[in-house]
Amino acid sequence: MVLVPGGSLMTRTPEEGRSLALTLARHTIHNIQPDLDILKGGRPNYSSTPDSLIDAARVVAIEFQTIAAANGYWRD
Amino acid sequence: MVLVPGGSLMTRTPEEGRSLALTLARHTIHNIQPDLDILKGGRPNYSSTPDSLIDAARVVAIEFQTIAAANGYWRD
Amino acid sequence: MVLVPGGSLMTRTPEEGRSLALTLARHTIHNIQPDLDILKGGRPNYSSTPDSLIDAARVVAIEFQTIAAANGYWRD
Amino acid sequence: MVLVPGGSLMTRTPEEGRSLALTLARHTIHNIQPDLDILKGGRPNYSSTPDSLIDAARVVAIEFQTIAAANGYWRD
Amino acid sequence: MVLVPGGSLMTRTPEEGRSLALTLARHTIHNIQPDLDILKGGRPNYSSTPDSLIDAARVVAIEFQTIAAANGYWRD
Amino acid sequence: MVLVPGGSLMTRTPEEGRSLALTLARHTIHNIQPDLDILKGGRPNYSSTPDSLIDAARVVAIEFQTIAAANGYWRD
Repeated sequence: MVLVPGGSLMTRTPEEGRSLALTLARHTIHNIQPDLDILKGGRPNYSSTPDSLIDAARVVAIEFQTIAAANGYWRD
Repeated sequence: MVLVPGGSLMTRTPEEGRSLALTLARHTIHNIQPDLDILKGGRPNYSSTPDSLIDAARVVAIEFQTIAAANGYWRD
Repeated sequence: MVLVPGGSLMTRTPEEGRSLALTLARHTIHNIQPDLDILKGGRPNYSSTPDSLIDAARVVAIEFQTIAAANGYWRD
Repeated sequence: MVLVPGGSLMTRTPEEGRSLALTLARHTIHNIQPDLDILKGGRPNYSSTPDSLIDAARVVAIEFQTIAAANGYWRD
Repeated sequence: MVLVPGGSLMTRTPEEGRSLALTLARHTIHNIQPDLDILKGGRPNYSSTPDSLIDAARVVAIEFQTIAAANGYWRD
Repeated sequence: MVLVPGGSLMTRTPEEGRSLALTLARHTIHNIQPDLDILKGGRPNYSSTPDSLIDAARVVAIEFQTIAAANGYWRD
């Protein structure tokens, strides 16, 4: 299973960087739990639990720190 | 759904940067759970639970680290 | 509601920077839960629960990382 | 038990860096709990619990921050 | 209550920096909960609970990141 | 009790740096809970609980960020 789709941390825009952050987090989880049925089975519950959503948002925030730094924060 | 409204991490002031941090966190959560009714249904509970508020504040703090670095900490 | 009172991350001393870190965290939480009565209602419980205090301290530590970096760690 | 297989944080690609992040996290856990039977016994449960998977993804995200910085974010 | 005893992040050694990290975390918690009796009352429980100790160690690790960066990692 | 055995963040290799990260985390916990019997009493439980192991791994990951930065990521 690919961990970094596209094989690069470089993106053209913050929007694409944010999307990559979500992708990286999802691929990590898929890598730890390769069975998609189990992943999908847990989704209704966690995605309607605020605390779980906040925890997921934290992972995305951390991944985005890395991607944003890699891209020089898209300052130009 | 847009993940980075405005499409940039650059803001004029720390206040606007802080606001963007809140926005980024909310858009991540909305992206994971697109059903606004479910999101609004959970809000009364988590927003009156101190531990959940602290967890949410942590996500904002992490997003703000990225935005503040992107803006050179608005030193000038 | 103001998110960054004073509108700047610059402080004269680490002590003031630390105080600002506490302020930023509190204003985030107040922004998410604008009803002060609810916030005050939850305070006796969380502020006497060690795990909650540790979680709150973590948020302050993260905010302080940003503020300290912004101020060049007050090295001079 | 080896903590950093290969003995280096340098990787050729983000994909390999991501893989190393997973490896580092796993070796830490194996170091704290050397009994593989206990580790494997707990796996079915945590790997089908969304909150646990999110927590694991956070550790990988933090390890990856270090590895990505070490490799200059594979910018070239 | 003082938040940064000594008023500086500069220390002579990593050992002193580590000690300051513990102090900063403790002073944050004391600031949020000024009643020492309540703090001491909760201590026997949390300090014998591994998960709480791990959480406390995480706060110290984050504070230490800031202090270590402030001191140029005491490289000389 | 010593918090930074060896008194330095400098290590020759990533492997030694990783080992130091584990050591720093353990010494923090030992500093907060000096009674080794209590620490050892809690160990069988937390070290066979996946969520606790993941939390411990996160602390090590954060400590390692600091140590890796201190050592210039052992790039040479």
